[in-house]
Amino acid sequence: MQKTDVAIIGGSAAGLMASVTLRKRHPDKSVAVIRHVRKTVVPCGIPYIYGVLKDVEKDIIPDQKFLDQGIAVIPNEVSAIDRPAKIVRFADGTELGYDKLILAIGSKPFLPPMPGIGLENVFTVKKDPTYLEQLHAALKQAKNVVVIGGGFIGVEMAEQVAKMGGAVCQDYFCTAEQAGSSINVSLVEMLPHCLMLACEEEFCIEAEGELRQLGVQVLTEKRVEAIEGTGRVSAVRLASGEVLPADVVIVGIGVVPNLELAAPLDLQTDPRRGFIVNEYLQTQDPDIFAVGDCASKFSFFSGKPSNIRLASVAASEGMIAASNLYEPKRKTLGALGAFATTVGNTNIGAAGLTTKAAADEGIDVVVGQAVAPNRHPGNLPGCVPDMKAKLLFRRDNGKLIGGHIRGSEAAADMVNILSVAIQSELTAEDLAVMQYATHPLMTASPLTYHVMLAAENAAAQIKNL
Amino acid sequence: MQKTDVAIIGGSAAGLMASVTLRKRHPDKSVAVIRHVRKTVVPCGIPYIYGVLKDVEKDIIPDQKFLDQGIAVIPNEVSAIDRPAKIVRFADGTELGYDKLILAIGSKPFLPPMPGIGLENVFTVKKDPTYLEQLHAALKQAKNVVVIGGGFIGVEMAEQVAKMGGAVCQDYFCTAEQAGSSINVSLVEMLPHCLMLACEEEFCIEAEGELRQLGVQVLTEKRVEAIEGTGRVSAVRLASGEVLPADVVIVGIGVVPNLELAAPLDLQTDPRRGFIVNEYLQTQDPDIFAVGDCASKFSFFSGKPSNIRLASVAASEGMIAASNLYEPKRKTLGALGAFATTVGNTNIGAAGLTTKAAADEGIDVVVGQAVAPNRHPGNLPGCVPDMKAKLLFRRDNGKLIGGHIRGSEAAADMVNILSVAIQSELTAEDLAVMQYATHPLMTASPLTYHVMLAAENAAAQIKNL
Repeated sequence: MQKTDVAIIGGSAAGLMASVTLRKRHPDKSVAVIRHVRKTVVPCGIPYIYGVLKDVEKDIIPDQKFLDQGIAVIPNEVSAIDRPAKIVRFADGTELGYDKLILAIGSKPFLPPMPGIGLENVFTVKKDPTYLEQLHAALKQAKNVVVIGGGFIGVEMAEQVAKMGGAVCQDYFCTAEQAGSSINVSLVEMLPHCLMLACEEEFCIEAEGELRQLGVQVLTEKRVEAIEGTGRVSAVRLASGEVLPADVVIVGIGVVPNLELAAPLDLQTDPRRGFIVNEYLQTQDPDIFAVGDCASKFSFFSGKPSNIRLASVAASEGMIAASNLYEPKRKTLGALGAFATTVGNTNIGAAGLTTKAAADEGIDVVVGQAVAPNRHPGNLPGCVPDMKAKLLFRRDNGKLIGGHIRGSEAAADMVNILSVAIQSELTAEDLAVMQYATHPLMTASPLTYHVMLAAENAAAQIKNL
Repeated sequence: MQKTDVAIIGGSAAGLMASVTLRKRHPDKSVAVIRHVRKTVVPCGIPYIYGVLKDVEKDIIPDQKFLDQGIAVIPNEVSAIDRPAKIVRFADGTELGYDKLILAIGSKPFLPPMPGIGLENVFTVKKDPTYLEQLHAALKQAKNVVVIGGGFIGVEMAEQVAKMGGAVCQDYFCTAEQAGSSINVSLVEMLPHCLMLACEEEFCIEAEGELRQLGVQVLTEKRVEAIEGTGRVSAVRLASGEVLPADVVIVGIGVVPNLELAAPLDLQTDPRRGFIVNEYLQTQDPDIFAVGDCASKFSFFSGKPSNIRLASVAASEGMIAASNLYEPKRKTLGALGAFATTVGNTNIGAAGLTTKAAADEGIDVVVGQAVAPNRHPGNLPGCVPDMKAKLLFRRDNGKLIGGHIRGSEAAADMVNILSVAIQSELTAEDLAVMQYATHPLMTASPLTYHVMLAAENAAAQIKNL
C-alpha cells in the first residue's frame, strides 16, 4: 500500500493552498492531493470561460506547478476512509495510508426542491471541467437563457453569457452589441436586489444597471415556481405568473457543504455548516483537519456561525490548517467576507459588513464616504471620474467593520486595504492620518485618496458626536 | 483690514488639505488660502503635462472646488508677517488679520553651485504654471534634452519628454516610436541606479530598462561637472569627460524647504529641515503650524530627522495640523515614504524602507517575495504575468518595515495595503493569515495574492529560524 505523510482530499483553493503551504513548512513530509475531477478549474474563473476565454481549457490550474514542488496529485474517487487504520480507500480498489488528513472536499450547488429541476439543460455551476464543457455546448445552441439567483455567481454568469458569441468582443469591457450576442439572458433574484448579501444597496443598483446595459433582463423580488419542459427545459415560470422561455437554465442560489465522506468518518458535522472544526481547523480527530467550503466557520465580527463560503476564506484556511498539522498554533480569524466582482464597466469590492448586515447585528455605524476621480488630474486617460469608497465604522469605538469600493479594476486591491484594516481592528482615526502612496496615472490625488478621505469624513463625524 | 480665523499660506497639497479639513472640522471658522501663483498645478501631475496632457491648463486644480466649500482663495504675494499683531502683509500693501496661521509654503528646487546653472533654458521643476509653460515652449523647440537627477521627478520628466511630440501617442503606454518623438533625452544620475533612494535595486534596474526602451540614454554613476553654453545652454559636461549636447536642461536633484518667511517670523528653523515643529505640527508659536515640504519631519521608523518630502506626507500633515488648531490632539506618525511611479510599461510602488535603507539602519530583515500573474487564470486579457511583491520584515519581531510592488497599475493601491500594514505594525504572521478579496479580472488568484503569499513566505522563514 502506498503511504503519504499528509493526504489532502480535494484539489481546489483550500486543498491546493494546504499542499503548497505544507511543502514550505514541512519540506521533509510527503503530501498527496486527491481529487475526483480530471483537471482542476480555476473556480472563480468559471464564468469567464463563457464570455472572455471561450474555452474551458483556458481556465485550468496546471498540475505541473504542484508536481514541480514535490506534491503528488492523485485523480481518483475516494470510496471510504478507515480512520482507525488511517487509510484512504479508492473506488478502483487502491489504497493510500496517511499520517495526517486534510478534508478540502468543498461544497455542492444547492438544488431547490422545485418542479422541473431535473430537466435536461438545467445546469448548476460545478467545478468539473467536463460538466462545464457540457454547459458551454448547451449555451452555444441557446437563444434564451435564464439564470436563477442573483448572487456573485449568478450575476457573473449572466454577464458573461450576455457577451457570448461575439468575435468582436476582444476585451471584457464591451456592450452586448459589440459582443454581437444573440442570446437573451434573464436573471431572476428573490431579494430586492442582486448581490445584496455582500454589497451596499446603491452598488447593487448600479450593477443591475450595468447588466441591463448588456441586455440582461434583471427580475428582482421574483420567485421561481417551476422549471417547465418535456425532457428538456423550455421555460421558467415565476410565482408572479410570468413565463420566461428558456433553452438553458443556470441555477446559482448557493451551496451546501459536501458531506459525502461524513458518514464513514464518523466526525461531527452539521448539514449547513459542514465538518465541525475548532479555530485551528481541527476536527474532533486531532489528525484530521477540515478546510474551505466543507468546514464550519464563524463570523469574524460576532463569533457566531457563518455561512460565508469564498475562495479567499478557503485559501486562508488551507494555509492555516497545513501550518497546524504537527503543532496547532495558527488560529483562523473567522470569516470576514472579502469579495470583488466586475459587472459590465464597473467593479465592486466589499469587505466585512454591509449597512444592512450591521443593522441586523444591531451595530450603530458612522458612514464615511469619498467620491473622487481615480486619476489626478482627472483629464488623464483611463480616469473613472466618480470612483467611490464607502466605509462603515462602529459608532461606539470607531473601528472599521465594512469597506465598500465601486469603480475601476483597482476596486479589489483597494478593498484589501480595508480588509486588512478590519482584520487589524483599525479605527477611522487610524486610517485618516496614515500616509498613502498616490500617483497621477494610478490613483486619486493625495487630497482625495479614497480610503483616507472616507476615513477622515467619518473621523470628523465621530469627533463631533 | 480684512480678517480671517485661519490663514493658510501656500495652496498646494498641504495647504489645500488643511483648508478642506478645517471646513469639515470647524465649519464656523473662516479660512483663507494665500498663494503667490495665479493657479495651482497638480504637483505630481507636472511631468504628465509634457507627454500625456500636452497642456499646462489640463493639470490645474480648479479653485471652484474650494470656493464652493466657503474657502477664500487669495492669490497674492506675502511680504511680511507681523506675529505679535497677527497680521499677514502683502506686497500690494493690503493686509489680512488672522487668529491661527498655517505655513504650507513648500520647497524650492535645489540648485547646485555648478558652472552654467544660470544659463537660459536650464529649468527646474517648479509648481508655477507660467514657468511650466515656458519649459513646455522650450521643450517643443528642443532636439536634445538632458535631465539631471534620476529620482522620481527626473525619471518621470525624462520618460514624458521622450514621449513628446507624438500625435500617435493617445495613451501613456506607448513606445518612443509610437510617440513619434524626435527628442533625444539623456538622464544623468550620480548613484549606481535611478530611483535608488525609494525602490529596491532590481526594480530600479527594470525602470532603467523601460527608459531605454523609450529611447532615453540612462547614464548612472555620472556627475555633472558643468552646464555649457553662451547665454543659452548648449551642452552638459560630465566629470567623466563626456559632453552631452543640450538645448534644454531639466534639473531635478532634490528640494530644500522654502524659508522665505522665516526671518520676519522669527521661528526656529533649520536650512535642511525647514520650520521646526512638534508632533502636533506646531511651531514654537502655539498659533502657528507648519506642514508639508516647509516643515521638519522625523522618520516613522527611527524617530530621527527625515528628509522625505512627498505629497502624501504633505496631505497627511495638512489634515493633522488643521485638526489641531484649536486643540492639539492628532499626532503625526512620522514620515514613512509611500510612493508610486510609472515608467514605460511598468509601475513601481514602495512603502517604508528598502533593503539598503534597512541595512544602513542596522536592521536585520527577512524577505518574503511573491511573483504571480495579476489575473487568474493568466490567460485573461490585461494580465501582467510576473507581477511581483517584495516585503521586508524585521527578523527580531517579524514586523513589516518595507513593501515593494512592481507590475500593473495596481502597484499603488497594493502598496497601500503594505503602507497601512507598516503603520499598524503588522507582522508577517498577521498578513499571512488574513483574508483578501480576489477576482479573476482584477487580481492574482486566492492562492497567490501577492501580499498574502509574500507574507507567508516570510512567515515560514521566521518560523524556521
